[in-house]
Amino acid sequence: MTRSELISLIQERKTFLCIGLDSDFDKLPAHLLKKSDPIFEFNKKIIDATRDVCIAYKINTAFYEAEGLKGWRAMEKTVNYIGDKHFKIADAKRGDIGNTSRMYAKAFFEKLPFDAVTVAPYMGEDSVKPFLDFKGKWVILLALTSNKGSSDFQMENDLYKRVILKAQTWGNADNLMFVVGATHPEKLAEIRALAKDYFFLVPGVGAQGGNAQQIIQYGSNGVGGLIINSSRDIIFASSGLDFAEKARAAALLVRNI
Amino acid sequence: MTRSELISLIQERKTFLCIGLDSDFDKLPAHLLKKSDPIFEFNKKIIDATRDVCIAYKINTAFYEAEGLKGWRAMEKTVNYIGDKHFKIADAKRGDIGNTSRMYAKAFFEKLPFDAVTVAPYMGEDSVKPFLDFKGKWVILLALTSNKGSSDFQMENDLYKRVILKAQTWGNADNLMFVVGATHPEKLAEIRALAKDYFFLVPGVGAQGGNAQQIIQYGSNGVGGLIINSSRDIIFASSGLDFAEKARAAALLVRNI
Repeated sequence: MTRSELISLIQERKTFLCIGLDSDFDKLPAHLLKKSDPIFEFNKKIIDATRDVCIAYKINTAFYEAEGLKGWRAMEKTVNYIGDKHFKIADAKRGDIGNTSRMYAKAFFEKLPFDAVTVAPYMGEDSVKPFLDFKGKWVILLALTSNKGSSDFQMENDLYKRVILKAQTWGNADNLMFVVGATHPEKLAEIRALAKDYFFLVPGVGAQGGNAQQIIQYGSNGVGGLIINSSRDIIFASSGLDFAEKARAAALLVRNI
Repeated sequence: MTRSELISLIQERKTFLCIGLDSDFDKLPAHLLKKSDPIFEFNKKIIDATRDVCIAYKINTAFYEAEGLKGWRAMEKTVNYIGDKHFKIADAKRGDIGNTSRMYAKAFFEKLPFDAVTVAPYMGEDSVKPFLDFKGKWVILLALTSNKGSSDFQMENDLYKRVILKAQTWGNADNLMFVVGATHPEKLAEIRALAKDYFFLVPGVGAQGGNAQQIIQYGSNGVGGLIINSSRDIIFASSGLDFAEKARAAALLVRNI
């Protein structure tokens, strides 16, 4: 998906919302467990109930890998089911030496139809560049993450700022975005100044404590520039028969902020 | 596997050698492609030919994910086939917020019988700790990697040293190791001084230019402390019918240094 197509989605649907399909098997509604593929059944119903109120879905690979082969199959089915009217993010946080990163890019961009992969910057340029070679595909590079551990290395010596500046010499606003956690709203304006035209994927709204209104106030760049993710607060809004309906209601709450 | 069991393996087999099963589908010997699971067939024959000349096998998940569901199945079969007389490393370079890292730990330590997972330190303490909670299992934390990009962030402001020191407040020499690339032999002695009792996983020998003799000279800590990995130079020593035999010969070359 191109940058202008993504901006069009935001304008049409009037939202920055990305729904994180962190579909932890142990948290699925009990009535789905008798289905042959409970994770896919769950995702399918969540997607059907929320297509028109979000611009993106984010699949965190950990929740699928934890279920082994069945989990990987559920991920394949889910990303194919989403279709091409949403921006599809593999939240995989990959990154390896060049020839190996190329294999990860193949996994998510060729074998699977994701539009973007989250990538960890620790291994530097040759670990990131192979992902940038795929036309119409995106790297979403970890910069300042939403968790407590972001203070361990990212915030020491302004490492996250150096990541944001250096990565702009590898990619551009048409194939590179940054992860900026919603739990750091006070830093968003400053980070926006370092990467004016770039999209930010902002996780951590809801369960992790981030506030969507503040994010838009400090993080928007006029033409969009934001993908705001919420996962658990939406998909696990109810564990009953009404889970999909309640997920839609929860998505509308975030969307309308 | 415990630290003393690992040290026993090194003493019994008189080697630090880990063989990296970077089993790129496109590089497999042509005669295996007609098999129902060429990657597993390849790994099985490599393992059969090298069991007695190495202490560990390292499976880089990228090469398996690149083949989708079939690749994940080949990985499952391979790690189960290795058995419990070798240290089994998932070279996955994972790392995410706490509840998500726990899912990755479940994937590699419960669903699959790996002894260790490589983890990227960028997201800090809560991204690493969930892996350390599994008894008899190991985190191998990226410190100074073997690739060119290691100079982008790791070597700026001695980030890799801060990673090595801080991580020792999260884990200990019984559940934590560090990745130190073979392409930095001049730094090995200095790094050893920062983490005297810890095992180092040293990739980059062979195809990437690292020299095993230098690594042992500068990196050993008397009781072992090293797992020296070689991948492509061993497993792709020949693409003919004799590939397993040639892999064994290549492994013996590295082993006897």
